[in-house]
Amino acid sequence: MTTCIAIDAMGGDGAPKIVFDGIAEFLKDHPNTDVNFLTFGQESVIAPLLTDDIKKYVTIKNADEVITGKQKPTDAIRMRRSSMRLAIEAVNQGQASAVVSAGNTGAFMALSKIILKTFDGIDRPAIPALIPSDSGSTLVLDLGANIDCSAENLVQFAVMGSVYAQKLMHIEKPSVGLLNVGSEDLKGNQIVQGAANFLRDHPLVKFHGFVEGDDITKATVDVVVTDGFTGNIVLKAIEGTVRLFARQLKKSLSDTVLSKIGAMIAQPSLANFKRFVDPRLYNGAMFLGLRSIVIKSHGGTDGVGFANALKVADEMIKQNVIPDLQTGLEGIQ
Amino acid sequence: MTTCIAIDAMGGDGAPKIVFDGIAEFLKDHPNTDVNFLTFGQESVIAPLLTDDIKKYVTIKNADEVITGKQKPTDAIRMRRSSMRLAIEAVNQGQASAVVSAGNTGAFMALSKIILKTFDGIDRPAIPALIPSDSGSTLVLDLGANIDCSAENLVQFAVMGSVYAQKLMHIEKPSVGLLNVGSEDLKGNQIVQGAANFLRDHPLVKFHGFVEGDDITKATVDVVVTDGFTGNIVLKAIEGTVRLFARQLKKSLSDTVLSKIGAMIAQPSLANFKRFVDPRLYNGAMFLGLRSIVIKSHGGTDGVGFANALKVADEMIKQNVIPDLQTGLEGIQ
Repeated sequence: MTTCIAIDAMGGDGAPKIVFDGIAEFLKDHPNTDVNFLTFGQESVIAPLLTDDIKKYVTIKNADEVITGKQKPTDAIRMRRSSMRLAIEAVNQGQASAVVSAGNTGAFMALSKIILKTFDGIDRPAIPALIPSDSGSTLVLDLGANIDCSAENLVQFAVMGSVYAQKLMHIEKPSVGLLNVGSEDLKGNQIVQGAANFLRDHPLVKFHGFVEGDDITKATVDVVVTDGFTGNIVLKAIEGTVRLFARQLKKSLSDTVLSKIGAMIAQPSLANFKRFVDPRLYNGAMFLGLRSIVIKSHGGTDGVGFANALKVADEMIKQNVIPDLQTGLEGIQ
Repeated sequence: MTTCIAIDAMGGDGAPKIVFDGIAEFLKDHPNTDVNFLTFGQESVIAPLLTDDIKKYVTIKNADEVITGKQKPTDAIRMRRSSMRLAIEAVNQGQASAVVSAGNTGAFMALSKIILKTFDGIDRPAIPALIPSDSGSTLVLDLGANIDCSAENLVQFAVMGSVYAQKLMHIEKPSVGLLNVGSEDLKGNQIVQGAANFLRDHPLVKFHGFVEGDDITKATVDVVVTDGFTGNIVLKAIEGTVRLFARQLKKSLSDTVLSKIGAMIAQPSLANFKRFVDPRLYNGAMFLGLRSIVIKSHGGTDGVGFANALKVADEMIKQNVIPDLQTGLEGIQ
């Protein structure tokens, strides 16, 4: 059976090039794949990018309009022939099993909600992210889709994060922690207190209890749940710290002739280290709470990063994630 | 004129040793200082630590009781003869101009509030922290004292952070950013929106606008203001990321014989790099909003870190920070 992934070929800072680089990269890693790609974009722009080695796997679909990164979602959803909209509609019409875009996050979220719909009881899908940790990575959600969250929202995130971690990270029963200012039961505000009360006896979630900010990189739990305000700020703070650290390290290692020589000798090991914090390898997040598989790639990524987002889409299709999410969310209605 | 700092000699994981190591370290850096120390603790325990080189500067004051790290603030404040309480009382009685402790944060906060009082309109003092950044460091507050914050609380933090940064970092007019999920004016919840409205025309604060999580280490502004829930989680997440990065780097550089040789050659530059993220050099935070100078040292610090907390106390006394904080806070009543 062939699997089909719809792609918004015009979304992202480096689009459409990164999209076709990404497809080529994906095919290099999956030589005998059953995956095909429906790429939506302005035909005159994207047709020349269809190289011989990917041609067999790619169908080009013309879409006249392009949603830019700066457009407001309210304006973007009015466009009927955008590459993003047509790619999402391909999923709704059953032509594809997942959609991937590196474009405008707000527009992608709004259009996916309108066209593909959320599960009952989910107002706005949550965005998860993988953060590097000692044991590999920790799944954190929500990363900013839901600024004001109720205790019930946090419980939904816990269920969705749990199912997603099962499928993506292949952990049978992922442990879930609720982000707080301390690990003791009495800490925090009413919202996290209320969510913890729901989660303590939850049949579908292996609840660890409260975790603190440094537990994310310590891999204390597999899934960390928080509201979109805190989650967005924490994710960006972690990214900023990694970048600062990398800049300072680079500066130190080019300080003197001796340190440059040292860095040169240690190069292969330092490259290993860079892989560890390479955000491209963590690229591709599913909007959790939608009735179909919608994968958001980082807007600033390159072909390697976009290939990873395609890998996540392929994985979620093969793991049949949607029915399990539905069951999990119905269980808490 | 002599300056006197009161010290809780029994507070902190490594107390009382780190306290006296810290005094020695401080005196090494300030050979002709006018600072004297009143150290409170069990005389039989601390007297033997009074070495010849610090003797001239230190007076020992007996305090029978010790507040442990695990004690609840409500229990701790009932003890009448604790080293922490007597050190705080020395400030209230005019025997010292500042108090420093590495002990139980909750107890230190509670006792300071009861004995030294907050400024009018301040319910609970805020805790600031210095975070390493490209330009040196960024001041972030609140770090966890105030879990639920109103817009008014955030405005008070902005004023206090501004004055503190002036005195501590010697920036004439520090720029202040409000932590949010985006830098655009319309982003965020009602509380940050409300605070931004107050701050846009504030006479005492150079308000930059909203900043994001990665702006902390990018040094976009001098002072970053947030509620204690987000602030606590972000600080710990940054600490955790630095530690993860350091562990992984160390691992990479000892992977192979070659990388070990490289690391050895680059050693002096790597040491420079370590200094950059050494938390001890950022140790010592003032409880902002109290009517006297109260400096909290990290509980797990060593002599070098404790010396830094003493340096902050000395600096705040010499800079005469309290009247400026009072003026700033009265201006917003």
